[in-house]
Amino acid sequence: MAESVGRTAAPESIRRHPARKFRDGRFDLEDERLAVEEPLEIRLGGRRFTITMRTPGNDEELVAGFLLAEGFIESHADLGEIRRLRGPKGAADPNAVDVILNVPAANLRERLKRNFAISSSCGVCGKTSIEATQRRIAPIPSRLTVGAGAILELAPMMRRAQEVFAATGGLHAAALFVSTDTPVRSNGARGNGRATTPVTTVELKVLREDVGRHNAVDKVVGYALMNGMLPLGAALMAVSGRLSFEIVQKAAAAGVPILAAVSAPSSLAVELAEEVGITLVGFLRNGTFNLYCHPDRIIA
Amino acid sequence: MAESVGRTAAPESIRRHPARKFRDGRFDLEDERLAVEEPLEIRLGGRRFTITMRTPGNDEELVAGFLLAEGFIESHADLGEIRRLRGPKGAADPNAVDVILNVPAANLRERLKRNFAISSSCGVCGKTSIEATQRRIAPIPSRLTVGAGAILELAPMMRRAQEVFAATGGLHAAALFVSTDTPVRSNGARGNGRATTPVTTVELKVLREDVGRHNAVDKVVGYALMNGMLPLGAALMAVSGRLSFEIVQKAAAAGVPILAAVSAPSSLAVELAEEVGITLVGFLRNGTFNLYCHPDRIIA
Repeated sequence: MAESVGRTAAPESIRRHPARKFRDGRFDLEDERLAVEEPLEIRLGGRRFTITMRTPGNDEELVAGFLLAEGFIESHADLGEIRRLRGPKGAADPNAVDVILNVPAANLRERLKRNFAISSSCGVCGKTSIEATQRRIAPIPSRLTVGAGAILELAPMMRRAQEVFAATGGLHAAALFVSTDTPVRSNGARGNGRATTPVTTVELKVLREDVGRHNAVDKVVGYALMNGMLPLGAALMAVSGRLSFEIVQKAAAAGVPILAAVSAPSSLAVELAEEVGITLVGFLRNGTFNLYCHPDRIIA
Repeated sequence: MAESVGRTAAPESIRRHPARKFRDGRFDLEDERLAVEEPLEIRLGGRRFTITMRTPGNDEELVAGFLLAEGFIESHADLGEIRRLRGPKGAADPNAVDVILNVPAANLRERLKRNFAISSSCGVCGKTSIEATQRRIAPIPSRLTVGAGAILELAPMMRRAQEVFAATGGLHAAALFVSTDTPVRSNGARGNGRATTPVTTVELKVLREDVGRHNAVDKVVGYALMNGMLPLGAALMAVSGRLSFEIVQKAAAAGVPILAAVSAPSSLAVELAEEVGITLVGFLRNGTFNLYCHPDRIIA
């Protein structure tokens, strides 16, 4: 089990609140646990950039993963510093950070131009034209292959690690998995360790929970970025719930070759995965799953 | 049943895609139905304003509900016109609309100032400071009361109407319900028709499905706005899945007194509902539910 699994169950992720439970025709007052949702303001070099409603905890990972997905940074080295803003009384504001990028302005403009068709309407982010959603993402080159049995294990492994969900029923999760197979030596009989040897067992590397599914994905990608794991060509990503375009976009930016979800993908999620070369797994539950594109990475 | 229930199951909401189903150790190729996700660009008076990823269908309702929630319009009369943009070959673009507001610029500025603390970073929308999430919404004055038995009926009634969800497993839903009780006359024995007479039976007025839960809510609110039903002081809103801050904010802007969800609310959803006077119902399933605030509207 990874060292960081379960860290999202910090006290800041859960808040207690009295609720009246209606059951068998009457109300009982009980103490309920709620998943915490709070705004995080992200500034870039002091300038207001965006706000996301998120579950507190692992904010630096969230910021790092978000900036990678948006094309602002490409590596940990690009992320100069993430500072907590100070409130009026000098105390650190738990819900506001300022990011100093380690990227020269000219490079940043070039990078954003390469990644997006920038519109003129919204300053830095420029995300108000439809073209802006059409990111130019390089195809995923990974030759990772995985046995279907290992895919089936992703959902129960993820569920067991969802501590805040278990407590509140209120959080989405995203997780990264890596192979635990004994490395095959170059004189081995199983194909000289070529990438085409299917992975048969995986372990959970990191799991993050958040009220926003996209935030949970940003956090695991940010964890990978901050731990030198990018691009994630040998990893599998799994998410609770459904798969939208945005989730596929974030996985693609991190180089993830196999993306699995417990529930359904949208049409645009499948289209984008097809285009960028991600193997898309949906309805991963009860010992079955669906493969929507690039099926060659999964071996029956 | 309302005339518009089920209209979301239009062909444009569902797309077919071949998928390999892994079951009992092997793959079978089958034809899967996916919930459609596509970007909708919303312009205001020709100016790029925002993009939302949504399921096509009922776009005018989506735009109307969104603009109400954001404080740009307050009534159907404020919504001058919603035009389809034309593509390069003159055909209507299915994914872009231009909205002409029927609101003088000075009134619009005043209205936005009243609703938000505007920041200077993002032109019209100005939603990049934390204060901008702190909308000033007038408390919900509704004295509607409803029997607990009617609350229990909301979830199965909503589920039966979720046609696209049934086909794809990929959509969120939002629905509005109104009382079907025989109006009590002023000489009646049940309290002279005062608002404190609990509603005992409700009917589904409108249900909308979308890949985005917030879009589904915008669509039902937009439907209510376009049909002269605002404020919704005598209606109940229900949503599939979870309750976030944003959903409570949208319900509050429409004047909804009772908001119910099949799953968990977040901490901030409960805080906002408490503040604006919405009765918040969560975990509405299997003949039980939780009441988080303003419980007096629900009678055991």
